[in-house]
Formats: sequence, structure tokens, C-alpha cells
Amino acid sequence: MNREVCTAMVIEAKQEKQITYQYIAQAINRNIVWTTSAILGQNTFDATEAKIICEILNLDTDVEKALQIFPEKGVNAVMPPTDPLIYRLYEIVLVYGETIKEVIHEKAGDGIMSAIDFTMDIEKEENPKGDRIKIILDGKFLAYKKW
Amino acid sequence: MNREVCTAMVIEAKQEKQITYQYIAQAINRNIVWTTSAILGQNTFDATEAKIICEILNLDTDVEKALQIFPEKGVNAVMPPTDPLIYRLYEIVLVYGETIKEVIHEKAGDGIMSAIDFTMDIEKEENPKGDRIKIILDGKFLAYKKW
Amino acid sequence: MNREVCTAMVIEAKQEKQITYQYIAQAINRNIVWTTSAILGQNTFDATEAKIICEILNLDTDVEKALQIFPEKGVNAVMPPTDPLIYRLYEIVLVYGETIKEVIHEKAGDGIMSAIDFTMDIEKEENPKGDRIKIILDGKFLAYKKW
Amino acid sequence: MNREVCTAMVIEAKQEKQITYQYIAQAINRNIVWTTSAILGQNTFDATEAKIICEILNLDTDVEKALQIFPEKGVNAVMPPTDPLIYRLYEIVLVYGETIKEVIHEKAGDGIMSAIDFTMDIEKEENPKGDRIKIILDGKFLAYKKW
Amino acid sequence: MNREVCTAMVIEAKQEKQITYQYIAQAINRNIVWTTSAILGQNTFDATEAKIICEILNLDTDVEKALQIFPEKGVNAVMPPTDPLIYRLYEIVLVYGETIKEVIHEKAGDGIMSAIDFTMDIEKEENPKGDRIKIILDGKFLAYKKW
Amino acid sequence: MNREVCTAMVIEAKQEKQITYQYIAQAINRNIVWTTSAILGQNTFDATEAKIICEILNLDTDVEKALQIFPEKGVNAVMPPTDPLIYRLYEIVLVYGETIKEVIHEKAGDGIMSAIDFTMDIEKEENPKGDRIKIILDGKFLAYKKW
Amino acid sequence: MNREVCTAMVIEAKQEKQITYQYIAQAINRNIVWTTSAILGQNTFDATEAKIICEILNLDTDVEKALQIFPEKGVNAVMPPTDPLIYRLYEIVLVYGETIKEVIHEKAGDGIMSAIDFTMDIEKEENPKGDRIKIILDGKFLAYKKW
Amino acid sequence: MNREVCTAMVIEAKQEKQITYQYIAQAINRNIVWTTSAILGQNTFDATEAKIICEILNLDTDVEKALQIFPEKGVNAVMPPTDPLIYRLYEIVLVYGETIKEVIHEKAGDGIMSAIDFTMDIEKEENPKGDRIKIILDGKFLAYKKW
Amino acid sequence: MNREVCTAMVIEAKQEKQITYQYIAQAINRNIVWTTSAILGQNTFDATEAKIICEILNLDTDVEKALQIFPEKGVNAVMPPTDPLIYRLYEIVLVYGETIKEVIHEKAGDGIMSAIDFTMDIEKEENPKGDRIKIILDGKFLAYKKW
Amino acid sequence: MNREVCTAMVIEAKQEKQITYQYIAQAINRNIVWTTSAILGQNTFDATEAKIICEILNLDTDVEKALQIFPEKGVNAVMPPTDPLIYRLYEIVLVYGETIKEVIHEKAGDGIMSAIDFTMDIEKEENPKGDRIKIILDGKFLAYKKW
Repeated sequence: MNREVCTAMVIEAKQEKQITYQYIAQAINRNIVWTTSAILGQNTFDATEAKIICEILNLDTDVEKALQIFPEKGVNAVMPPTDPLIYRLYEIVLVYGETIKEVIHEKAGDGIMSAIDFTMDIEKEENPKGDRIKIILDGKFLAYKKW
Repeated sequence: MNREVCTAMVIEAKQEKQITYQYIAQAINRNIVWTTSAILGQNTFDATEAKIICEILNLDTDVEKALQIFPEKGVNAVMPPTDPLIYRLYEIVLVYGETIKEVIHEKAGDGIMSAIDFTMDIEKEENPKGDRIKIILDGKFLAYKKW
Repeated sequence: MNREVCTAMVIEAKQEKQITYQYIAQAINRNIVWTTSAILGQNTFDATEAKIICEILNLDTDVEKALQIFPEKGVNAVMPPTDPLIYRLYEIVLVYGETIKEVIHEKAGDGIMSAIDFTMDIEKEENPKGDRIKIILDGKFLAYKKW
Repeated sequence: MNREVCTAMVIEAKQEKQITYQYIAQAINRNIVWTTSAILGQNTFDATEAKIICEILNLDTDVEKALQIFPEKGVNAVMPPTDPLIYRLYEIVLVYGETIKEVIHEKAGDGIMSAIDFTMDIEKEENPKGDRIKIILDGKFLAYKKW
Repeated sequence: MNREVCTAMVIEAKQEKQITYQYIAQAINRNIVWTTSAILGQNTFDATEAKIICEILNLDTDVEKALQIFPEKGVNAVMPPTDPLIYRLYEIVLVYGETIKEVIHEKAGDGIMSAIDFTMDIEKEENPKGDRIKIILDGKFLAYKKW
Repeated sequence: MNREVCTAMVIEAKQEKQITYQYIAQAINRNIVWTTSAILGQNTFDATEAKIICEILNLDTDVEKALQIFPEKGVNAVMPPTDPLIYRLYEIVLVYGETIKEVIHEKAGDGIMSAIDFTMDIEKEENPKGDRIKIILDGKFLAYKKW
Repeated sequence: MNREVCTAMVIEAKQEKQITYQYIAQAINRNIVWTTSAILGQNTFDATEAKIICEILNLDTDVEKALQIFPEKGVNAVMPPTDPLIYRLYEIVLVYGETIKEVIHEKAGDGIMSAIDFTMDIEKEENPKGDRIKIILDGKFLAYKKW
Repeated sequence: MNREVCTAMVIEAKQEKQITYQYIAQAINRNIVWTTSAILGQNTFDATEAKIICEILNLDTDVEKALQIFPEKGVNAVMPPTDPLIYRLYEIVLVYGETIKEVIHEKAGDGIMSAIDFTMDIEKEENPKGDRIKIILDGKFLAYKKW
Repeated sequence: MNREVCTAMVIEAKQEKQITYQYIAQAINRNIVWTTSAILGQNTFDATEAKIICEILNLDTDVEKALQIFPEKGVNAVMPPTDPLIYRLYEIVLVYGETIKEVIHEKAGDGIMSAIDFTMDIEKEENPKGDRIKIILDGKFLAYKKW
Repeated sequence: MNREVCTAMVIEAKQEKQITYQYIAQAINRNIVWTTSAILGQNTFDATEAKIICEILNLDTDVEKALQIFPEKGVNAVMPPTDPLIYRLYEIVLVYGETIKEVIHEKAGDGIMSAIDFTMDIEKEENPKGDRIKIILDGKFLAYKKW
């Protein structure tokens, strides 16, 4: 079973059983963001995690194995994104990308924020003027090597 | 004077005088991220802010006026970004865009995180295993209106 | 059942039964534009609306559930549009986009018209020189936040 | 003088003299939207209109002549738009284009809304929950000819 | 039955029965160009036309209904065209587009040739130096409206 | 002098002197369409033609020589065209390209209409229901060679 | 049977029976290059040729008919080519295209080399320093018509 | 002096002095195709060749040095080409690329024709039915290495 | 059986049997990099190699034959790559491509590094500061031929 | 002085003085590859390095300062590359990208080779069958973080 078929089966089972990403994340003791990304085929579950998920969703060992394949990342993303929610993130890169570069260089010197040694957190913050979404990107600073 | 010429003049003056974005931000009592974006022509200074900046950088009233023009945003951005630092942000949208959509919908329902009613903060966090960069995106949740 | 299959089934049933978008809109007490967009998978029905639609079109509960999924918006759109009707809308953005930006800024200051807190109406206006189509876009003005 | 140089000169003079599009529109007895589009080089002034504008802005006859050239439309537009305000219009075509096609066909049959025999109006509507922008597109319905 | 399946069935039946576009056009009393375009899913047959075509080609009522759907135009076109015959038309737009614009403006003023209120004729002209193809495009002149 | 500078000078002189393409075409005894295309740098004048044009427009021998350079064709065309007039031609290829291919093959067999051994005529036809534009494309039929 | 299915069937049969393009070319008395292109769906066999090919490959009359359809050319080509062999040809156009234009104009005047009244030959030339491939393109010179 | 300025100066001098590529090629004892490509900045002259060319065209030592820079190849090419002459070459790759791949593999096995260890010749062949252009591409066969 | 189906079957069998690329490479006495590329359909196995592989993976003679087809290279690659691992390689070309060109020219003169007469090696190097990956590209230097 | 002007001045001075990249690299005690990349504006010199380079090339302090700006990387790269030398590198990613991904995952697990904590070496290896170029890419293995 390839990873795309596996992803479709997990999502269908999850919808049918009305199980949340949060529930699965807690069951495997991981953050909801990482768990969701791994379900969507952007990260890799280990054997234990895959087993728990297949038990929760009542899926067989083919799915369990496929969840452990190192996936081809990003292949189904549409760029520029057409979905308004995802486009807003793209727009932030478009409008503020250069700004972020300048501020990181001023604060930390010549290097980048890693997207590999990286975590992300997403929170909803209640607010009388309208709730807010907070996305926290946290990546290791990698200095450009000179040689 | 159009906004692009104005931006180039401010950056040149800033480099020559060795003044940081942080210094300018404090002088106008704004966050460094917003201030940098406005210098780079992605946001608009008001009259008072423009005046202070031109005093700091010793620039004339043409620049002061041009800093108050509502800019054409994002026009000089290269997409996909070629600079590794900016590309990593793009890659996060590519790899995690769908994940962010799913998590926001699960936490807040059918809507988006605004990129207009929006603030961003960037911090360097010292860490013995290697310093880390934290980027906090904070936008109003806007529910899709039904009619 | 994923949203695309669901959309195809609703449209087929609608064609077979010769039912108009207007009829469905009235049955669920919504505007024809919003209703059509939701049938085409660009907005989300709630449980009550989905139930009514499936009764009208004689479709089963799988469709009913799928109509309530938060959809991936815009993914099937062709840009630039090849269909002349849709291209004319694109052309209006191409030719008048900058004009609309200038006029909104002059009338309301630095901000945008929301496409989320947004409604649209479409009317045919009879006219002896040739009928006219009126499309009314109505979105909340969102000022750019400074921080 | 070509039309692009002419446009830049009119905009610079307009900014310097702090004259609004509305003021110019009233002086030539036209709608602000059409007037703005013609200043931006997307429509053509007649001799009388061009003369009045050059008097208001104190520009010479070269500009006056150039304002009467039939322009090359849309050439400077960036598509997809990078500016958030203009992008929201593009997003409306992306998300609702098919919807508009279906609704026009249901209301008026097989044809299109003209973007040539066409007018547009933009209004700001004050609202205690936040002001709103209304854009009214009004084009002749053109039926596809059969032959 | 959607329009694409319908198109494929009509073309297959037409090839099998060795029936020409010209024959079908005469049967429904339309020009061969319009008839061919409608068979290829770029225009819409009315009920009478659809019935005649299905009788000629021995196709059932599902096809008959589908031939009356208002089609999504141009979606299968490859641009730039790869087929040499179609590319030559594209090349004419590429090389002579600006010329056509200038000549129409000089002859008829500020406006366009409609592609909706439009007919086309294609003729083969025998010639001892080599036969020639004549394509006659005939569209209504639409003046740009001022408002 | 390269061909682009030459084109700009001819057009400027033509505008200043208020001379039509038709007038120049008659002076050199050519069709207005061909003459316009050659002025716009898409075809080549011979020495006699170049001389007459420079006399009419009062331009020097540098221009005269440059008008005889074999030009790089199509390089300034924007595809897809943004100008509505030129876009309508592109749309005809998009919507009717396949139709034209089918009709030419049915009428003349396996080959193409040449865009090199080719002439074009443009006429305005007065009509009480609205004037019409007629564009006649006339190219040699070239059969695909088998070898 | 459409042309793509037909092509796939011919190639599969050819591989299974281990028959070369050269063998088929000789059987129908055509050049190997033309024969290969026609098998790949870029040229059209006549009835006699199609019959011989189907006899050699033991294919039925559906294939025989489909081999005589005038094909849609070039639709499956990937541009820029990803295959190194085909890319080298593309690179020759990229690097030497302008050179070829200049040399043809110097040798033959203002016109082009036809790709329709055109033949191609491919030869392997043994050489002790490494064998060489020779591709001979031979097309009719078509002068640009003036009118 | 960079290579682009150098190219422009050589071409201008060549046009002014009415010197052919053939004449220059003979003066440096090279093929006209290679010579033209090197003048256009796609190949490199050695010191002796550069000197002869600058003497012929009466250009100074800056040009002489610049003609010896290893150029950035292909950067000014427009792909797909807009000029009909160059497009026909591109079309040959589009339509016959796969054919050439198949024939080379059948004749010489798994490898490519080099575009580096490569020569090209262009000839005009007089013919009563219309002159023909012959382009002979001749490249070393490079087998894919296995390791 | 075409090459894509064949590739999918080999990979599925390899996953099921938990066999490494290294194991297969040793069985056929080839480098792991070349072996992996050939399994992925980017290089060609000879008859002996194909036989061994099918024995190891328990696949039938259809696969064995298909593994010997000269493949269409690169067709499934996504460019720019979306997978972070592959993107980093692309980024190296983006950022260091010009550098590599300059250094090769300085060290070896006017020519290129072949990607056909070419081998690659990939090694993991253990390192207390974090393991490293070494990719060694080794291609024949091909001088540009002059003629 | 911005970084692009600075780069152009350094390269011009280097050409004029006939100084090699190797010579400059040794003067600042860095590898030729890194030094070349930094001269071309893809890496950053420190104050000492910038000073030495400006002394060697006889350039003033404006250049010295500009060499220390953190550059915008990759902005002038053409992708896909048109220059054959750089294209071959791109082709290696196109053809072997997936292979490299598979081999790295098999050897080191789920992660990537860093292009930031990264060095490159380029060597010419003399060989009687034709000299070879060796490019050694050496990057830290970064495992995907789970959280």
C-alpha cells in the first residue's frame, strides 16, 4: 500500500468514527500539529504510534506499515494556495518574508531558521473583540558555514 | 518620489549610519517587525512616525511624504523564494499548510486566521544545544459568513 | 465519501430532477449565490441544510455528511479562466484591480475589503437596450493593524 | 510622450497638489471609478476631459495629448496579485467564479456579462459592526450567438 | 452524464459511422463551424438539434440531454498549442495581435471585436499555386463604455 | 540603431504628425494590416518603402536602415494578452482552435494553414444593430509531407 | 478507439514481438524517422500502411482505423524536456536558435524553414574517437509574404 | 566590459560596415554557424580570432578581451520562441523529440547525442519547387555510464 | 508492461520483503546509487541484472523485460522539488550553480561536467558533532568543440 | 552601495587585473569554492576578508562595506538553467533526486542533508581517457524533529 492510499483510508476512518486529531495526538503522546501532519503524510510514525492509531481507527496492518514509510513531502500542496486559510499563510511569506529575513539577521547574524529541527504550535485565544489564532514557529538557528 | 526610491534611500541611510531596525522601532514606539516591514515598503507610517525616522536618518521631506503612501504590497517578493531563509518559511506553508488548516478548523470551526488584523513577533532564544528562532503569528479568527 | 464525489452526485441529481439552485436556496432559506457556492463545494452546509437538500434530491446520508465537511476551496478553478464568462471577471481584476485599490484607499483609508466577512448578490436587470447583470460584492472593511 | 510616462506624471502631480480622484471626477463630470481607471491608463479621456485635468494639475499639452491615446490595458497588473486588497478580488473569482457562472446561466441563459459595456461603482457603507465596502459590477448580458 | 463523456461518445459514433461535420450541420441547419464547436463541447445545442444529432448517430437520451448543458469552455485547450495547425493561429495572435488592435482602433475607435456576438466561417479556396484556407472572423464592435 | 528604438521613433513621429496607418499604407502601396505590422516591427520594409516612410515622417537615414532589419518577431507580445481587444483573439484560439483544426482537416485533409504564406484583411462593416469587425485570415494550405 | 490507446497497443505489440522501427519502415516503404513518428501518433498512416502494420503486429481493424486519424500533435511532450536525450535537442534551440535565424536570413533572406514541408534523417556514423549521431533537418524555405 | 555590451557593439559595427557572418568566418577560418554563435555570445573566441574580428570591425581592445570571456549561454533566448523561424525548430523538438529518442536508441543503444562535442552546418539548397534549408546536427554518441 | 507499472511493482515487492537497495546492488555487483536509480526507472538493467532482481523479489518475466526498456528519464520529478531533502539539492544549484561554473572554467577551461559519462557516490560519515552526508559527483570534462 | 553593484565591480577589477579566484582564496585563507560564491554575492565576507580583497583588487571602502552585507541569495539564478554547465547540475537533481532521497533514508534514516551547515569542493582529476570533474557535497545530516 502506498502512502497516499493509506492517508485517504485514515482520514475516512477518522471522519466515520468522529475522532479528533487531538484525541489521536493524546493517544500517542504527541502534539496535535505534528500528529495531524503525520496523518496527512508529511511526517513519519514509528511502529508503536502506527499500531495505536490503527487500533483506534480499526485499520489493518497494511495501513500500519504504510504509516511508517518516509513520505514524499509537499507533493499535493497547491502553490500559490487556492484555499483562503492556507493562502493567508502564503501571503505572510509574500508580504513579510523580507522583513523576517532582516529581523533574524539583526538578532542572530548570518543564518536561517531551520524547518527540519523545528516545532510548531497552534492555539486559539478567546478574545471579546473576536477570538485569535496564534501560530508559533520554533526552529533552530543554523549559521551559514564558511570553509 | 515613489515608494521604491524612498525605500532604497532609507536603507542606504540606515546602513551608512549603522542604525538598527530595533533603534528605529523604539524611537517610534512600535514593534521591530512592524517597523522593519514598513521601512521595506509593506506597511505605512503616519506623519509623526515618518518625521521621526527622517530626523534619525537625516532625510528630507520628500522621503517623509513618500513613507506615508499606502504601498503596493509584495511586488518585489520572489516566489518561490530563492533565499534559503525565506524559502524555509515557504516550505513550512508547502509542507504544513494543510495541517494548519485542519488544526484551525478543529479548534475554531470554519474560518481563517486574518493576515490583516494580524501581528507578528520574532525572538531569538538562547539554547545550549543551539540558539532557536521563534516566530509568533497572531491573527484574528474570521468565520466564513453565510448569507 | 470525499467532497468532490459528493459535489458530482448532487449536481447529477439536480440535473436529473430539473431542480434549480433558486429552489434549493429557498428551501434552506439562503441566498442563491451562497447556496450555489456551497453545492459546488466552496462553502459548508450545516446539518439541517444538508438534510433538507438530500431530501429534495433523494440522496443518502453519506452525501448528507459530506456536505458538512469544511471544503478545500478553489482547487478546481482554472486560472486564468478559460470560460469566457469567468474570464470577464478575471479581466475586471486585471484591468480595474489597481483602480479599486486606489478608490477604496481614498474612501476608507489603509485596509482591504474582506472576502471572508463577505456576501455577494447577482441580479438580472431587464433593459430595452439589452438586459444587464448586476453583481454586488459586499465585504467588511478591514484596516491594516499596526503593532 | 508614451502613456506610462504620462500616468506617472499625473500621479506625481496629483500627490504633490493633494488632489483627490473624487475632485477630478467631479471636474470632468464622471464617476470616480472610471476617472481613476483612466488616470491609471486603463481608459481614455476625450480632449475636453484631458484639458480640464491638465489645468487642475498644471501639466502641459504633451500630457494632454497622451491622455487621449487608446491605452494597452492591464499590462502592469501582477497576476496572481501580491497586494492583499487586489488579491481578495482575485480570490473571489477563484472561489466564486464557477458559482457566478451557474447563477447567471440559471437567471439569464447561455451568455456572459460584458466587461466592455460595463460600469462599476464602489461605496463605503458605515456600519457599527465595522464599515463595509460595496462594489457593484454592472455589465450587459451578451448571449452566445449561434450561426 | 457530464459533457466530456458526452463529447467522447458523439465523436466515437461519428467516426464509426463515417459521418462528416458538414452532414450534421446541414441536418440541423447550422454552419459547419458552429456545429463542430458545439459537438466539441464549446457551444450548446437546443433540444431539437440535440434530438436530430442523436438520431443520426444512434445515441440515447442521456447524450441528448447532455448536449444541452451550458458547457465549461476552453478547459481542454493546450496553451500555447502544441499541434502545428492550432499553433499557427496562436502565432497570428502573437505576431499580429498588436497590429489588429491598432487597425481596429484606427477604423472604429476605442473598443473591441466581440467573441460572443461573433460568427466564424472557414473556406478552402482552390488555387493553382497551392490551395488556400480562408478563416473569416466576424464580431460585433463593442465600444468601451464611459460612466 | 536597433529595431525597437526605431519602432518607438516611428510611432512617436506618426502621433505627432497625426498621420494614419492607412495614409502610410497607401503611400507605399501596401495593405494597412501589413503596413501596420511592419511599423510595429513584425515585418520588414524594403529600401524604397523605408525611404518613403522616413520622408513622410521626417526621420533620418538611421531609421531608414533600421526599418530594413529582419526583425525578431513577437518578443513584446504579452501571452495570455491582458488587453481585452487582443485577449478576444486569444480566446477565439482557446475556444475554437480544436474546431478550426477539425474543419480544415475535413475540408482539406492532413495539413495546416500557413502563417507565413499568409495575408490578413480587417474591415469595419456598418450595421444598424451595431457595427461589426471582419478579420479575414488567408493562408496557403500546407500538407504534411511524408517521407 | 482513440489515438492514444492505439499508440499504446502498437508499442506494446512491437515490444512483445521484438520488431524494430526499421523493419516496419521497410515494410511500408517509408523512412524510419517518419514511420516512428507516425507510430508515436505524430503523423498519419494511410489505409495501406495501416493495414500492413496491423498484419505485422497482429492487431485488429480498430487499431487499423485509429492509425488513420489525423492526430493531435505534441500533446504528450514535456517542455522543457526532462529526458537528457531530448533535452539536448531543446538546448540546441536554446543556445543556437538565434544563430540559426541569422544564418538562414543571411543565406536565404526573410523567411523560415518549414516544419511541415519537411523531412528528417538520423544516422549513426562509426568513428574510432567515438561514434557520432547525425540528424539532418530538411525543410522548404518559405519567404514571408508581403501584401 | 561585460559580454552583452560587447555583443551589441560587434553587431552594430557589423551592420554599419555591411559585413557578413560568412566574411568574418572565413577571416578566422571557422564555419559560419560557429562564428555566428560566438558573435552572438554563445561560444568563445580565442585571442587570435578576437584580434582579427576587432581589426575587421575597427573595434578596440576592450571588445577584444570581452570576446574571450566564457559566456553565460542561452540567457536571452525566449522559450517557447516567439519568432516563427526559431519556433519551427522548437516545434520539431515538440513533435519529433520522442521519435528522435526512439530512433537513436534503436540505432545506437542507451545514450544521447552530445550538444557539447557537437557541430552544426546550415545549407541552402536551390530547388525548382522552392529552395530548401538543410540543418545538419552532428554530435558524439555518449553512452550512459553504469557504475 | 510499461516502465511505470514495473517500477511500482518492484518497489512494492521490495517493501514487502524488507530488502534494501544495498542488498540488491551487491547481488548485481553495482553501486547502490546506480542500482537505486535503475530501480526507480532512471537507468536500464541488462538481461542478467534484471533476472537476478526478479529472482530476489520473486517477480515474473514481464517485469524482467520491462526493467530492460530504455526509460523516459525525469518525467515524474517535481521541479522545484517540494520534498525538503530533494529541495536542498535544488537550492545548491540555485545558490552555487554560477560558482561551480566559474570554478570549473578556472580549473579546466571552456567546457562542462558530463551528466552522462558520470558516476555518483553517497556516503554517511559519522561525526560526534552530528553525522554528515557526502555526495560525490564525478563526470567527464567535455570541452566545447569549435568548428 | 548595494550588493549587486559591488559584485559587478569586483568581477570587473578581477578580470582587468587577471587575478584568479584561487589567488584570492589563498589570500584570505578560504576554499576557492566558498570564496567564489562570496564574490558572486552568495556568501558574506567578514571585515578582514573584505579588506584583503579590496587591497588586492584596488577597490575603495564602499566596496569593502558592501562585501559584508548579508546577501539576498539565488536571485539572479535562471531556473531551469540555460547554461549547459549549470543545466547538467539541474539535470542531476531532476534524474537522480529521488534516488538520492532513497539512499540517504536507507543509510541515515528520516532526515535531510543540510545546505547551510554545508561545504563543497571541486577538483579536476587528470585522466588519460579524458579529464574528470569531481564535486564533493558535504552537509550535516539533520533528522526531522518529532514533537
